[in-house]
Amino acid sequence: MGSQGVTPQSQDFSRWYTDVVRMADLADYAPVRGCMIIKPYGYELWENIRDALDRRFKATGHKNAYFPLLIPMSFIQREAEHVEGFAPELAVVTHGGGKELEEPLVVRPTSETVIGYAFSQWISSYRDLPLLINQWANVVRWELRPRLFLRTLEFLWQEGHTAHATAEEAQAETMRMLEIYADFAENEAAIPVIKGRKSEQEKFAGAEETYAIEAMMRNKWALQSGTSHFLGQNFAKAFDIKFLDEQNELRYAWTTSWGVSTRMIGGIIMAHGDEKGLRLPPRLAPIQVVIVPIWKRDEERTAVLDTVGRIKDELVAAGVRVHVDDRVGITPGFKFNDWEMRGVPLRMEVGPRDVAAGTVVLARRDIPGRDGKSSVQQQELTAAVPRLLEEIQENLLSQAKEFRDSNLHEAKDYEELKAIVKEGWALIPHCGEAECEARIKEETKATSRCFPLELNQEWNPKGLRCAVCGKPAQGYAYFARAY
Amino acid sequence: MGSQGVTPQSQDFSRWYTDVVRMADLADYAPVRGCMIIKPYGYELWENIRDALDRRFKATGHKNAYFPLLIPMSFIQREAEHVEGFAPELAVVTHGGGKELEEPLVVRPTSETVIGYAFSQWISSYRDLPLLINQWANVVRWELRPRLFLRTLEFLWQEGHTAHATAEEAQAETMRMLEIYADFAENEAAIPVIKGRKSEQEKFAGAEETYAIEAMMRNKWALQSGTSHFLGQNFAKAFDIKFLDEQNELRYAWTTSWGVSTRMIGGIIMAHGDEKGLRLPPRLAPIQVVIVPIWKRDEERTAVLDTVGRIKDELVAAGVRVHVDDRVGITPGFKFNDWEMRGVPLRMEVGPRDVAAGTVVLARRDIPGRDGKSSVQQQELTAAVPRLLEEIQENLLSQAKEFRDSNLHEAKDYEELKAIVKEGWALIPHCGEAECEARIKEETKATSRCFPLELNQEWNPKGLRCAVCGKPAQGYAYFARAY
Repeated sequence: MGSQGVTPQSQDFSRWYTDVVRMADLADYAPVRGCMIIKPYGYELWENIRDALDRRFKATGHKNAYFPLLIPMSFIQREAEHVEGFAPELAVVTHGGGKELEEPLVVRPTSETVIGYAFSQWISSYRDLPLLINQWANVVRWELRPRLFLRTLEFLWQEGHTAHATAEEAQAETMRMLEIYADFAENEAAIPVIKGRKSEQEKFAGAEETYAIEAMMRNKWALQSGTSHFLGQNFAKAFDIKFLDEQNELRYAWTTSWGVSTRMIGGIIMAHGDEKGLRLPPRLAPIQVVIVPIWKRDEERTAVLDTVGRIKDELVAAGVRVHVDDRVGITPGFKFNDWEMRGVPLRMEVGPRDVAAGTVVLARRDIPGRDGKSSVQQQELTAAVPRLLEEIQENLLSQAKEFRDSNLHEAKDYEELKAIVKEGWALIPHCGEAECEARIKEETKATSRCFPLELNQEWNPKGLRCAVCGKPAQGYAYFARAY
Repeated sequence: MGSQGVTPQSQDFSRWYTDVVRMADLADYAPVRGCMIIKPYGYELWENIRDALDRRFKATGHKNAYFPLLIPMSFIQREAEHVEGFAPELAVVTHGGGKELEEPLVVRPTSETVIGYAFSQWISSYRDLPLLINQWANVVRWELRPRLFLRTLEFLWQEGHTAHATAEEAQAETMRMLEIYADFAENEAAIPVIKGRKSEQEKFAGAEETYAIEAMMRNKWALQSGTSHFLGQNFAKAFDIKFLDEQNELRYAWTTSWGVSTRMIGGIIMAHGDEKGLRLPPRLAPIQVVIVPIWKRDEERTAVLDTVGRIKDELVAAGVRVHVDDRVGITPGFKFNDWEMRGVPLRMEVGPRDVAAGTVVLARRDIPGRDGKSSVQQQELTAAVPRLLEEIQENLLSQAKEFRDSNLHEAKDYEELKAIVKEGWALIPHCGEAECEARIKEETKATSRCFPLELNQEWNPKGLRCAVCGKPAQGYAYFARAY
């Protein structure tokens, strides 16, 4: 399949998305409704996301561990808000080893409970704190309206869980991880994000505060792409996570949790994709350079493939992820379209004339047509290719930034908000109350995205009032259509 | 905790094992019976195992992907032997999203079925073959007698699944992966293994043939440490995996599957451990070198810690995994015992006299006492440490080989077998029949481990007869107590 079949983005964004995911071989639906099969190309993208995050977690002192998939139902029920939030989404194991279980087990929807239990065993003294743990795992949440990568019944993610001696330290950890997510999004995924606090209604079930990174997709919808929760002492109290402090007093710990999932892949697709399909940021792309050898006569074939093989080895040795498309019976033009659709940042064409001249043609995915093409000396490739990949990475980020910034608008009143959220994100002074948010959602389909940190240095700034309901504002908030 | 509490291996091997797993902070039981929490030190060991295997899989053309955790019950039932083997071990999800499901879902015990389904969608022509896929995942099998790492209700593993155009190619893949497992075991885990074919009774439910690597533990029991299955066309027929061959004829594919799990960690513990605790092979050890700074007076402290910091940085830059044990209020002697129990291959002691002399003391975990200690110039460490780690790696392998070889014995008859399996592995010409194996198991507790490949070049060699029942022998087979 080539890109012939991708529905144009401008025509139907939703169909474009599904086409791209399936035709680029990223993922497909599984036999169980709402579940997903992540295909090799999609999984390699996930491996690169995982490695880039994992490096950051380890560099900040976190250790990976693994906790069980199956959680006693009674654990979920111990934290009141937690069970209220997750009960409707649970998958429940009632039979094991041919027998009905005495207590049903839940397939983890998230692991605060079972990790809370473990922390209560591991922590006894202030010397055991801070405890900084991360887990790479699958989780299951019963989704009624599944979308590949964005909302699937099962998804892959990392969930960090930490315990601290003081509220301040736990709050600092919550913000540290939010910054790490933002850094990852901007510098690896080339997606500019807005860091902010979620409203009471949008926060994690059981958290005191939830912070998120929010990204703008090409249809101007928002995607919550990572969350960091300050859990206060809620789970510490539910699971008895206590420690003796330096004065030998028994205290509850303060905990956090934070996660990024395969949803990030959906974000990368929708933040960068264009009419032709995917555009992958070079730092995460499974294939950074695809080489298309071109020949007509058989005697040209050997010379071209020899040159291609040598170039490939040199680039691989230089740390570049290269794929040679040597499929037979398929035209170069078809291959060009195919790899453009699959979002490979850089295409290299090598034909008999290039072999003779010691050159290759490079074509950038981010600059269409002639402007993105250049002829490069073969001996310069190990320097030129990494440099070009960096340029593409930066260009994707600056394009996404420009697009995002041109679609953020301040709304003076509810009427302006209504108009803006049809085509962008609206910023308003906002009360943060459930009733007001519910009304906006019902009337405009836009939801409260976050109170952006950089616009909310003060609480209730300048005594402002909510642009929609007139009550005192908690601060400035973005509203937008969202996934 | 120090090593004070480890039950001596010679006194009670089973308690020694549990003590080591828990005191070395590798893993612990979870609230759900039979489930396990893999703690950071154990998980880092698993990450190193994973990376070493993953490199080998990718180098041989395999791609990672991810398939769903939840499998329709009807899938499991499609292959007759498969359902018979796995039905008693299934965990079953009957409720999701607050409702009873129309069809119960099984938490994957292994993924031949759902991957078979996917392969039937992905494969249409001989050009799609071979299809070489691997998955890193968790699986659940209802275990009645759990042991940490060895048999847990949930475990982590990789499962390779491949499809081929011919039986020969699938058989070659089966053997290729068996070789990769053996290579990994010997060259990374320092565990010599016997490669062999499992008997009819011991093979995977649904396979035509199962091959395994079998390792000897320090109590002379066997541990099946990895398996590679030739599945014939069994799953291809159950899941309709068909392709058009070069003559445009529709044919069933031939498939394989192969897996290594967190059980390998149990193997590493029991193949190398001694009275004092763990001995980890340097290539997989989370910590290769632990540095214990030693000082008495405060003015010595700064000089020692400065030197230690510098040495650590140099070793990390040289690619060595280093940990500095700068805990206060704990004696050096306690730390030595603790890290010996935790199996760190090399200990470095740095005291005021070392700082003055520009030396350090290195102590090898594999050579106890004075013989394993040496004084090394600080400027030679980046060369000396990697060399010593290699020596330790080789020594662990040769010790394990010697131990294994001295406990393999040929048995001329059943009486000899009975005596041998109390203290080793017995090799006999064997019929391979269910009745005979059941009798041996009942009377001696020893099970058929495998028909070792290197002793079974011919089928029914030299017209031998089973040493136990007298029927024609399929070949030579090992019998041993096993996990």
